[in-house]
Amino acid sequence: MKTAVYRKEHFNAAHRLHNADWSEATNDKVFGKCNNPHYHGHNYEVVVKVVGEIDPETGFVMDVKLLSDLVLEHIVEKFDHKNLNVDCPEFNTLNPTAENIAKVIYEILRPFIATSLDLSITLYETPRNFVQYPA
Amino acid sequence: MKTAVYRKEHFNAAHRLHNADWSEATNDKVFGKCNNPHYHGHNYEVVVKVVGEIDPETGFVMDVKLLSDLVLEHIVEKFDHKNLNVDCPEFNTLNPTAENIAKVIYEILRPFIATSLDLSITLYETPRNFVQYPA
Amino acid sequence: MKTAVYRKEHFNAAHRLHNADWSEATNDKVFGKCNNPHYHGHNYEVVVKVVGEIDPETGFVMDVKLLSDLVLEHIVEKFDHKNLNVDCPEFNTLNPTAENIAKVIYEILRPFIATSLDLSITLYETPRNFVQYPA
Amino acid sequence: MKTAVYRKEHFNAAHRLHNADWSEATNDKVFGKCNNPHYHGHNYEVVVKVVGEIDPETGFVMDVKLLSDLVLEHIVEKFDHKNLNVDCPEFNTLNPTAENIAKVIYEILRPFIATSLDLSITLYETPRNFVQYPA
Amino acid sequence: MKTAVYRKEHFNAAHRLHNADWSEATNDKVFGKCNNPHYHGHNYEVVVKVVGEIDPETGFVMDVKLLSDLVLEHIVEKFDHKNLNVDCPEFNTLNPTAENIAKVIYEILRPFIATSLDLSITLYETPRNFVQYPA
Amino acid sequence: MKTAVYRKEHFNAAHRLHNADWSEATNDKVFGKCNNPHYHGHNYEVVVKVVGEIDPETGFVMDVKLLSDLVLEHIVEKFDHKNLNVDCPEFNTLNPTAENIAKVIYEILRPFIATSLDLSITLYETPRNFVQYPA
Repeated sequence: MKTAVYRKEHFNAAHRLHNADWSEATNDKVFGKCNNPHYHGHNYEVVVKVVGEIDPETGFVMDVKLLSDLVLEHIVEKFDHKNLNVDCPEFNTLNPTAENIAKVIYEILRPFIATSLDLSITLYETPRNFVQYPA
Repeated sequence: MKTAVYRKEHFNAAHRLHNADWSEATNDKVFGKCNNPHYHGHNYEVVVKVVGEIDPETGFVMDVKLLSDLVLEHIVEKFDHKNLNVDCPEFNTLNPTAENIAKVIYEILRPFIATSLDLSITLYETPRNFVQYPA
Repeated sequence: MKTAVYRKEHFNAAHRLHNADWSEATNDKVFGKCNNPHYHGHNYEVVVKVVGEIDPETGFVMDVKLLSDLVLEHIVEKFDHKNLNVDCPEFNTLNPTAENIAKVIYEILRPFIATSLDLSITLYETPRNFVQYPA
Repeated sequence: MKTAVYRKEHFNAAHRLHNADWSEATNDKVFGKCNNPHYHGHNYEVVVKVVGEIDPETGFVMDVKLLSDLVLEHIVEKFDHKNLNVDCPEFNTLNPTAENIAKVIYEILRPFIATSLDLSITLYETPRNFVQYPA
Repeated sequence: MKTAVYRKEHFNAAHRLHNADWSEATNDKVFGKCNNPHYHGHNYEVVVKVVGEIDPETGFVMDVKLLSDLVLEHIVEKFDHKNLNVDCPEFNTLNPTAENIAKVIYEILRPFIATSLDLSITLYETPRNFVQYPA
Repeated sequence: MKTAVYRKEHFNAAHRLHNADWSEATNDKVFGKCNNPHYHGHNYEVVVKVVGEIDPETGFVMDVKLLSDLVLEHIVEKFDHKNLNVDCPEFNTLNPTAENIAKVIYEILRPFIATSLDLSITLYETPRNFVQYPA
């Protein structure tokens, strides 16, 4: 049976929800106040889950300190105190919904995690709105 | 790979655990102080999870605002500040355990969620007692 | 300078807000859905704060284990899984608002705390509604 | 002895820390990444505390439902999903630090609270950074 | 469809991470400050998850009071206020990483849970580091 | 009116409660399982509160980043992943109760905070046991 290891980190960022292919009326209808052209923001909490076998020598699936360092270097450094739409090329044409941010985080981190380990990202946009990729 | 979207809402309600087919002695033995005939109560937290593909146009699996509205209209409006045993026909003959409340919430919400999406309910009776349906 | 020691405990109870001297219309107007005659309920969190000097022999203002035992014996035992209006004589004629419950808890506990120590009660009715007595 | 009543609400907003009287170098030195010209954001939690006597007829210091409505109408409606620097005249020339936001919230709400009641605002910018006005 | 029931309990313990087959240099390199020979400690939160069918007579998958009692008797009693490395034979030769503690808890509890029910353990070493066995 | 600024940090440590001037029987009677000679441990959360006037140029009472740095350098660096009784000279003859740890943290930090500002420390030993110095 496999074991999961989780590490939670956080970053604060501004964003807006917007589809440049749509009229402003459609954007307003679909995204409401999240479409504010001057942006709003969140304290994002990101939980990274890694699943695999426990190494009998260390007792670790993966050293959670190394996992934390990966998230700090590749995710928090990139997104913290940033405007996701403006400062982050990942979202130049991709709408920064919680779903898409979680998927982008997964794709950034996947190459740094051993292929024997499964990876999943849970992203809290607020304590009451959150997503997981892959589910 | 699929993505999950979660929304948390809450309601406050009274209930008692009781099986009308049993003697009072059996009810007391099985349900203990939860069988108090004058009821007790909880701040219930309900987390609704919807799993599916991310729509490339919106970046949403499902608009979490719509998901919140569904829970407010069909669950919170029905159960908040109510006595589950007395005020809610769903529990006239069904014991309002956390398990059964979660299942009832699932059955109420399921028809309002697109059939392409999976649905699961997590219900916190207290921060230390909670259930999930389906698991 | 003095030091405060805090202990948090919890109980689950049913209640309704109601003033027997008023008409039902006035009760509905003032207390709204909290006036449901069949009751609703909460997970109450109670934080007991005791302020005094640190005893140089123990390093304690007051042994938090003894403080916890006092709250369990005199408050949790009395209110947990109860209907405050029906089962608890303290609220036979006193409306069980959070303010009044906090004051009742203070009055019950005060005789058990050394007179050299100050006492204050914070009561969470929900994570978003809470009171403190004395303020 | 007086009693305090607390109500917690939340809003999500973008902001940047900036003093227009200073050079960009000084702004960067003092405000660091909080000075990002494209903004960042937070999930703000605001706790409103009102202190006074318990009304013997209602058992309330102040009806927490009315207190919640005041915060929703005058604070959340104004700041939620907004860019504090751009969308909110209160911060056109006032730096939207947590301290200043708390003070602005106090000044907005003070006229709506009975003069017999004391008011204090606690504002969480993140779960680890928060302020209170007046202290 | 099956239902999950969860119960959260907690214990406070000291531990160090150490592999007696390694040199001190290797222990320091792999475990860093967690290898402090004088130990450090944590408030562990353990969430026990049991999955099965809802019993139509009780409305329970498993009585969460009985589940709580099992965890208190077999886990909290054994590990609370203990030094895991020194006081607990389970970790005499097994490194008390979160992964291994979760697995040990699973193995202790598994015989007490009906074979028709699945069991899984989530262990929080801190609010930001946690593990699940089996995943 | 003054404003308070708060910053929360955390450290994990082992400790035991013990008075070397007492017999073992008295230590056991007073401190119970907290007197385990092999130590136990906690995830300590420390909240540092600084009270003063808002600087009109910065909008800060005190830059919370500088406050965080002070706590990390002088408190977390000193106590994290340590055995308070053995590794920390502050507790060689002082019993490391939560009260005494809070007071020690206050005395360490006080010289680094401007004399125009008031300082207070809240220390969580567990989410349910905490202290404040000065009260």
